[in-house]
Amino acid sequence: MASFELRDFSSDHSMLALNTATLGHNVEGHGAGWSPEQVIDACAERGYGAVTWWRREIGDRAAEIGERTRAAGLEVWGLCRSPFLTGPLAPPDRQSVLDDFHASIDMAAGLGAASLTICVGGVVEGSHSMRESLKQVTSIVAEVAPVAQAANVRLALEPLNPVYGGNRSCLTTVRDAVDMCEAIDHPAVALAIDVYHVWWDLSLASELKRAGAERIVGYHLCDWLADTQDVLLDRGMMGDGVADLRHVRAAVEAAGYDGFCEVEIFSAQNWWKRDPGEVLDTCIERFRNCC
Amino acid sequence: MASFELRDFSSDHSMLALNTATLGHNVEGHGAGWSPEQVIDACAERGYGAVTWWRREIGDRAAEIGERTRAAGLEVWGLCRSPFLTGPLAPPDRQSVLDDFHASIDMAAGLGAASLTICVGGVVEGSHSMRESLKQVTSIVAEVAPVAQAANVRLALEPLNPVYGGNRSCLTTVRDAVDMCEAIDHPAVALAIDVYHVWWDLSLASELKRAGAERIVGYHLCDWLADTQDVLLDRGMMGDGVADLRHVRAAVEAAGYDGFCEVEIFSAQNWWKRDPGEVLDTCIERFRNCC
Repeated sequence: MASFELRDFSSDHSMLALNTATLGHNVEGHGAGWSPEQVIDACAERGYGAVTWWRREIGDRAAEIGERTRAAGLEVWGLCRSPFLTGPLAPPDRQSVLDDFHASIDMAAGLGAASLTICVGGVVEGSHSMRESLKQVTSIVAEVAPVAQAANVRLALEPLNPVYGGNRSCLTTVRDAVDMCEAIDHPAVALAIDVYHVWWDLSLASELKRAGAERIVGYHLCDWLADTQDVLLDRGMMGDGVADLRHVRAAVEAAGYDGFCEVEIFSAQNWWKRDPGEVLDTCIERFRNCC
Repeated sequence: MASFELRDFSSDHSMLALNTATLGHNVEGHGAGWSPEQVIDACAERGYGAVTWWRREIGDRAAEIGERTRAAGLEVWGLCRSPFLTGPLAPPDRQSVLDDFHASIDMAAGLGAASLTICVGGVVEGSHSMRESLKQVTSIVAEVAPVAQAANVRLALEPLNPVYGGNRSCLTTVRDAVDMCEAIDHPAVALAIDVYHVWWDLSLASELKRAGAERIVGYHLCDWLADTQDVLLDRGMMGDGVADLRHVRAAVEAAGYDGFCEVEIFSAQNWWKRDPGEVLDTCIERFRNCC
């Protein structure tokens, strides 16, 4: 690893972004239920640098919410997310996938979001094959990439923890994600790196070096709880788990990433039940001290 | 991959071994509750080739059960397992780990088992470091390896799915397991490969080639259910999930493995509730047709 200086956030959280899933806004029936305006005001008054939204919060107000976010001094960092492209959770056919993919790009563009997150979806039903499934993902993302470029939105392929390989993401490692970027070889196609999904991978630094700075458009913070009770909705607050957060960030920054650090904590039984203001304050404190 | 011929099991299950966890015998309060004698008779009459036992079934009858197994025409393929060596589930200190590790080697030797499975344990508490945790594992296994060699027992390091990284295994990839074998460099130290843990890994074939035939002492069968309900006790029967079972076996055999295929299905809500005879019959049918 070349010599570089890790960014010092110990007394500065202007590079902290809120992913609103941290307030439970990604799942119907959970979380704070704040309006986008409440989220924006709460983040702005605390000095967050940006917000990443979920589609279900935006509806038909993309341009309005984008402008409102920026007017408060925050950037719109990302939008979650494209449809699943393959597997049991994807829309029923390729055209439906493409239609919803285009709709999500339109929304990201309306918001002025820098990137759109892609969780690619699980193994193609009946295929019993990661390779075949990844081929189908590659084909769809390659087809959509020019649309994203025209909309000025980067597509952020997010490799997910292998525990999701069956249903949510046949893209399970940074290595495979970099390979997919290289295979598609389009400037709109890049990566997002999430602590929850990659913390265990000793090849992280070398794979991110291989990706290069231009291909890393997101870095997501949370922690892995040693005794996790639910692999979907029991993520830990930074510092409460076993991940080496400083080491992961060093790998990301050594590869050239200098963007926001986006806190994204799915936590149905803990953080989503707390006062949202307390959650936002805790994220800042942990970001400064543990990340 | 060099040209090789995949073993043909379509009308021959003499290389099928039963891991008794498939009958729920690994967890108190679950499963068939059969005596070892019942297990032996049921496997022998169906033409299984070997049995892998769990320590809780053996008690102080290791030599007796080993002889009884062989008298029925079956091999004792393995014993599950050493204590966790690190992390929250390990014994409280290094000496306690070593004592129980030695006890498990003694039992494996008493049974005449070819190998003892090692699930290495999770991240060392307070360390927040996979690397530090793996170092501690390496140190313990290296210390115990000569004891195992003297007892004629191979130590089978089993990399577990990264979902267990926090509590059950900081050894999460075949790559890291091969690295650990190379670091220890002792003839008693080898690998076991389990479909459940490696099915998602596209580097499997190349890593197993790097390991070499001498270092692969176990191959475990089950399937990964796309919509798994529990990452510990909801494994699938071969053919019911999304894993490419033929591809995984091809990787193992191309690396030179020619030992038993050991079916090991933890399934509290499905297979453990069925008649054990039906389970054993189904394993044979699926082994011949799906594996």
